[in-house]
Amino acid sequence: MSRIVQKFGGTSVGDVERIKKVAERVKLTVDKGNQVVVVVSARAGVTNELTARAKSICDDPSDREMDMLLSVGEQETIALMAIALHHMGVEAVSFTGAMAGIYTDANHTKARIQTIDASAVETQLAAGKTVIVAGFQGINEDGHITTFGRGGSDLSAVALAAALKADNCEIYTDVDGVYTADPRFVSAAQKIPEISYDEMLELASSGSKVMQSRSVEFAEKHGVVFEVRSSFNFNRGTVVKAEVPHMEKVVVRGVAVDKDQAKIIVSNILDKPGSAAKVFTAMAEAGIVVDMIVQNVGRNGIANLTFTVPQGDTRKAQKSLEHVLDEVGGGHVAVHENIAKLSVVGVGMKTHSGVAAALFKGLADADINIDMITTSEIKISVVVDQDRVDEAARITHTAFGLDA
Amino acid sequence: MSRIVQKFGGTSVGDVERIKKVAERVKLTVDKGNQVVVVVSARAGVTNELTARAKSICDDPSDREMDMLLSVGEQETIALMAIALHHMGVEAVSFTGAMAGIYTDANHTKARIQTIDASAVETQLAAGKTVIVAGFQGINEDGHITTFGRGGSDLSAVALAAALKADNCEIYTDVDGVYTADPRFVSAAQKIPEISYDEMLELASSGSKVMQSRSVEFAEKHGVVFEVRSSFNFNRGTVVKAEVPHMEKVVVRGVAVDKDQAKIIVSNILDKPGSAAKVFTAMAEAGIVVDMIVQNVGRNGIANLTFTVPQGDTRKAQKSLEHVLDEVGGGHVAVHENIAKLSVVGVGMKTHSGVAAALFKGLADADINIDMITTSEIKISVVVDQDRVDEAARITHTAFGLDA
Repeated sequence: MSRIVQKFGGTSVGDVERIKKVAERVKLTVDKGNQVVVVVSARAGVTNELTARAKSICDDPSDREMDMLLSVGEQETIALMAIALHHMGVEAVSFTGAMAGIYTDANHTKARIQTIDASAVETQLAAGKTVIVAGFQGINEDGHITTFGRGGSDLSAVALAAALKADNCEIYTDVDGVYTADPRFVSAAQKIPEISYDEMLELASSGSKVMQSRSVEFAEKHGVVFEVRSSFNFNRGTVVKAEVPHMEKVVVRGVAVDKDQAKIIVSNILDKPGSAAKVFTAMAEAGIVVDMIVQNVGRNGIANLTFTVPQGDTRKAQKSLEHVLDEVGGGHVAVHENIAKLSVVGVGMKTHSGVAAALFKGLADADINIDMITTSEIKISVVVDQDRVDEAARITHTAFGLDA
Repeated sequence: MSRIVQKFGGTSVGDVERIKKVAERVKLTVDKGNQVVVVVSARAGVTNELTARAKSICDDPSDREMDMLLSVGEQETIALMAIALHHMGVEAVSFTGAMAGIYTDANHTKARIQTIDASAVETQLAAGKTVIVAGFQGINEDGHITTFGRGGSDLSAVALAAALKADNCEIYTDVDGVYTADPRFVSAAQKIPEISYDEMLELASSGSKVMQSRSVEFAEKHGVVFEVRSSFNFNRGTVVKAEVPHMEKVVVRGVAVDKDQAKIIVSNILDKPGSAAKVFTAMAEAGIVVDMIVQNVGRNGIANLTFTVPQGDTRKAQKSLEHVLDEVGGGHVAVHENIAKLSVVGVGMKTHSGVAAALFKGLADADINIDMITTSEIKISVVVDQDRVDEAARITHTAFGLDA
């Protein structure tokens, strides 16, 4: 007997028919004699629908009330899932996040899990029940309902797996697993059988949309091994786990593309201490996440500062910069939106040299210009023209031997 | 400053526009310096929609999971109501039934309130907040969500008014108050300014659909005075309160009609001890509520037993009777569905004689035949042909001086 946490996202439980399908799948695992905890999201579309209803009343609804509102989405799904399981003869019981003992801070709409008191879930498991838990939600110490923001149900699943010392944690989604590249643009992309937390994190922050970073971080911190797999078939997915020595044999685990990037160039500013700080303080105060940063110093103490931000934030970034231009020498701001970021990720980079060179050579051979470069221990990212980034991804995928 | 509980039903909060209208109305009360607790139902239709979704998975979903499912309806409304109030500058906070400290027994889908720990609501009121509470729901001692069944939000409002020692309890609905008769069939019907609990209870049990009996019973038991009024206008409604002497001056407070009645005649049974008991035990075991009962004893120790049941239960009643006919002498069962019950209700009957005579004479003058009769201290009910019951109601309304 194993203890297994299974998480099904909004697409997997999108309507009554899909909920029944998921219930059948859960039953297979239960019938093998396992203890099963099922974490579910709201039906696809419900969260948007509720948000739209709130926004039609008030442009800026309070975070506390949005949590009260949105948490009903998962609560509906857990009840329907329990009903579907009962109908198949599986003894199941549904729990809200609060009832499952998921305690968070008071940071409404983006709460962080602080502790999990899994005793109520343990009691039900011990009684032979399958426990259905509402993902994405918890409760703070004052008894108010909180939610975790995007990807929150993955976090619920990973955190419950940790608290329950589960043998397996399975994240069911609408893709088959983590791929070496986005199969829509790189036809030779392969499913990755296993990947380290760090690689998964770098892929997530590089535009791969499979999971939010914080669920992976939580899993890494608590040593939760999880598998990302499809709820629509029975293929094995991708196992995400701590790095093991043989992983380093693969230099590049995957290639990620992020097209949601804009480049901002602040030119002709004074190259004196504090200029960059002023620019990035302005960005931080506007709540804009800056990704890549390059500073060039020219002659005569004049510098250019180039950085990337999410495309949706370019207007806000320009506005914020207007206020600091005088302070940094009255420079000039230019925005380029036709860019994209290409990243190669792999723990093997730590022990293999020449990765950057191979990446650059491949792109140069195809006459693709590299605009910016950043590196981390297990990642190299470059900015290229958005028009050519898919081609760049295919070339790079081949160059690092990732094609089948 | 008064402390006021206001309850708004599903029609009153049926969509975003209506929720805003209700919020405006609540704000009027708040702006007068009152402490306000608002109890809301699910938006009209939501409960049916959720129920249909559950039934499309399983004909007979578990009560515990139906409570988990249905309670989301009110939770959505409380959040939207709080958001609407914030938008108008009213400091409001939403509470589920559980958060409001409404503790019930474990009788899912028809739970009874056991205690209310109003401390969390008191804290918010003391802090100047308007508190929005989800009606229809509570929590049992094991922390599971429970619901109260039909009319449950009225019960929440009355119970909170009792626990909070509210000065006023206002039940907003889609009718103007309690009428002397159903205005759809008796055009001369008048709104009743005030009515005793007992009259309200007798009217409720006689087909008047304004409120469920148990909310009135709860109010009577805890001495909660409440007003039934419309959420769509500012007219005064009907105040429901303990009987006061001047109420007895009015002999008949109202006329109620219940068309959802069927008459069952069990004829030719042995008139011996236990026959009636066997028949009604069979009904009770089938969960059928029997209303009026008449027994006629004929010659030769043969009796007829006539009683009324809700129309939806006639098939079930016939089936149950088949099993006991042999035991009571092999009698015969006949069902008549074309009947209706007409009741006159008034605390004045306790001190006025001749009410029955006046009722019977009015009907006799119009050549309307009376089939069965029952009486209580403050009510007389008769069964007549369903085709003629509206006419009977009009005649009776006039006979007792209830027309304008």
